[in-house]
Amino acid sequence: MRTVKVGLIGLGTVGGGVAEIFGKHADDFRRRAGVDVDIVRYADRSEQRFADLDLPADRTTTDAFEVVNDPDIDVVIELIGGTGVARDVVLQALRNGKSVVTANKALLATHGEEVMEAAEATGVDIRFEASVGGGIPIIEPLKHALTSNEIERVLGIVNGTTNYMLTRMGEDGLDYDTALAEAQAKGFAEADPTADVDGLDAAAKIAILSSIAFNSRVVISQVFAEGIRDLAPQDVEYADEMGYAIKLLAIANRTLEGIDVRVHPTMIPKAHPLASVNGVYNAIYVVGDAVGDTMFFGEGAGSLPAASAVVGDVIEVARRLQIDCAPLVGCTCTEQLSVRDMADLRTGYYVRLHVTDRPGVLAAVAKVFGDHGVSLAAVIQKRADEVTGAEIVYVTHIAREADVRAALDEIAELDVVSAVASMIRVEEL
Amino acid sequence: MRTVKVGLIGLGTVGGGVAEIFGKHADDFRRRAGVDVDIVRYADRSEQRFADLDLPADRTTTDAFEVVNDPDIDVVIELIGGTGVARDVVLQALRNGKSVVTANKALLATHGEEVMEAAEATGVDIRFEASVGGGIPIIEPLKHALTSNEIERVLGIVNGTTNYMLTRMGEDGLDYDTALAEAQAKGFAEADPTADVDGLDAAAKIAILSSIAFNSRVVISQVFAEGIRDLAPQDVEYADEMGYAIKLLAIANRTLEGIDVRVHPTMIPKAHPLASVNGVYNAIYVVGDAVGDTMFFGEGAGSLPAASAVVGDVIEVARRLQIDCAPLVGCTCTEQLSVRDMADLRTGYYVRLHVTDRPGVLAAVAKVFGDHGVSLAAVIQKRADEVTGAEIVYVTHIAREADVRAALDEIAELDVVSAVASMIRVEEL
Repeated sequence: MRTVKVGLIGLGTVGGGVAEIFGKHADDFRRRAGVDVDIVRYADRSEQRFADLDLPADRTTTDAFEVVNDPDIDVVIELIGGTGVARDVVLQALRNGKSVVTANKALLATHGEEVMEAAEATGVDIRFEASVGGGIPIIEPLKHALTSNEIERVLGIVNGTTNYMLTRMGEDGLDYDTALAEAQAKGFAEADPTADVDGLDAAAKIAILSSIAFNSRVVISQVFAEGIRDLAPQDVEYADEMGYAIKLLAIANRTLEGIDVRVHPTMIPKAHPLASVNGVYNAIYVVGDAVGDTMFFGEGAGSLPAASAVVGDVIEVARRLQIDCAPLVGCTCTEQLSVRDMADLRTGYYVRLHVTDRPGVLAAVAKVFGDHGVSLAAVIQKRADEVTGAEIVYVTHIAREADVRAALDEIAELDVVSAVASMIRVEEL
Repeated sequence: MRTVKVGLIGLGTVGGGVAEIFGKHADDFRRRAGVDVDIVRYADRSEQRFADLDLPADRTTTDAFEVVNDPDIDVVIELIGGTGVARDVVLQALRNGKSVVTANKALLATHGEEVMEAAEATGVDIRFEASVGGGIPIIEPLKHALTSNEIERVLGIVNGTTNYMLTRMGEDGLDYDTALAEAQAKGFAEADPTADVDGLDAAAKIAILSSIAFNSRVVISQVFAEGIRDLAPQDVEYADEMGYAIKLLAIANRTLEGIDVRVHPTMIPKAHPLASVNGVYNAIYVVGDAVGDTMFFGEGAGSLPAASAVVGDVIEVARRLQIDCAPLVGCTCTEQLSVRDMADLRTGYYVRLHVTDRPGVLAAVAKVFGDHGVSLAAVIQKRADEVTGAEIVYVTHIAREADVRAALDEIAELDVVSAVASMIRVEEL
């Protein structure tokens, strides 16, 4: 049995997990999967990591390109992250005829086409199961088991940090700042939480998922992203009263007018399976024309779950190399679907207003919504407090985003309204 | 591009779905997956089905072996079911060098080894994603994306009929007979519901799942199966009061004493993701040493969901054949683990007794449990009615099945006890 030689670049959290799994299970892979894989080179900027992970000195280097240009190496694992060095490393590895396994969502959501083309040019694999949903198998099912379907929709909870925060806000009424501080203290959120709380991490992931699901390239800059910074405890409370949970959803729909793809806090019915995905767990919900509704649930982050997906990809490549088989699936973006303008979104909307004059406001606000063709499903008077005055919550029927926004601009100018405190999209799913 | 030629045998519910998907998407498979697949032969016992599905007359036959022995055919889809003709068809196809795709859980759970060996002998594929969980991708993730894990546990709701019945019993307090009649009226249960309600269908499925998860052959005869016939509405009600849902779970654990594999009604905490899987939905929960907890959810039965999995398997085989690549994964049963005796199971137990003399019974029953080393977590006095007398519910701490059974045999003989009305295993998961 031929030994498949692997170079591992980037020994951070996930890289450490990959080394750990190989240390524990390399013999099992030989016996159970018939795959002989060996990590022959480890690269990291920090020599300290070599010591931390107790790696043999003759296999370590601080120069990633030593690994990428090593003619002995069959497969490169890229766990540097980002679109700088990582991009050069991945492209050079592919051009050198090495298959690449990566967890790099930013790279794929930004330079996916370039990476795919480089892999195709030399007839090698680029695999990235760990880029979305940590250890949850989702890229592979979309590319394989579900190929028989026209996928209509893929949506999910793909950021564990914000899901943890929203869970805490829902369960214990924490406000945003307290929830963030707690997430940081527990190591679930970084010191600079921007990528998570502003929905950018989720936007990269839904770009990747929708590209595969709809066979058409979607890049991160095409994804509308709204984060959870402005979410108030009373929004979570009112949603709960109305039978909804608020989740930061990444959503992609195939529509007749193009791909509808977006990330934003979303009110969903509590009975929906995604509503009970709590804490740092992730789940991706896929609707296909044959399979119907399916959901893939698991740990979306963390060293070992992400490493599980990385090593799974490596084993897949190794199986293929051992029998001298070409990659079975290359780039699947065979269509060129447009991405729909967010202004054309049609969904339900929850709107919370601070009002100064409760008797006068109802008719005035209803008139503005009506003028813009937005019809109301519910109007609920809420508590008044000294700071913000009285609150009124509106829930619209399905309406067009542009119309709702125009109405809200006008409503904000009404004398009786002191602020449009929040607007949250409602998906009945 | 070479056309991969497929013979479809068995045009029942799933076979009709397969024909439908090919009719709708064969062009998409060419364009999106680069796979040219054509069903060139259809076989069924009933000529009526050819007319129902509007199949071209020159492609139909009532003789399955005409398909199996047709040298033009690359892939045979077997959807006859059962272990009679289906076994001959599958084995002959494999021996003829054709890859086989099947949904046949009974065949794989009974003659899996024989089938695997036949496939290996001629270097072809045997794929069976649709045999467990309908359209839910679970066999493929276990064999591919999750290979990097030592799987510790796989369990789930794998029978939609009984899950529908249990959901109705839980939501509306229906009794077993009413729930069954409703399931039959809706087409979710067959006229003879034995395979579903006695847990035999689920037993075949967990035999297949555990064989793959633990790399060790488990056959259906090794699986303890207890169905839902004896489940009373008050058991469902009392479970609910105590914070549990009752589900017919198929469970397999890797233990130091061998594989623990079984099917039975199980009380699980309502907060567990499996507890909210309702109606005809299925879900399989997998715990691996790296990935942690994952769950795969979807429609476990029905024409199109199961056909989705069948066609997915066919496309996988076709991808491989088009580039002249050998199967990447063969039989994965490399270990020989024993199956643990049910008597050695250690879990919690819920026991409901009918008692004649409430004051006298508590001490007497507690003594018998104590004599057998079974300690009690809860004792709850329940209503008395004219027919059954008073009821008392016990919940044990973790105990050994053999000890609980011995205690219950003795308790049934006590003068103050008129019946051991039910015993349900409790898994805290």
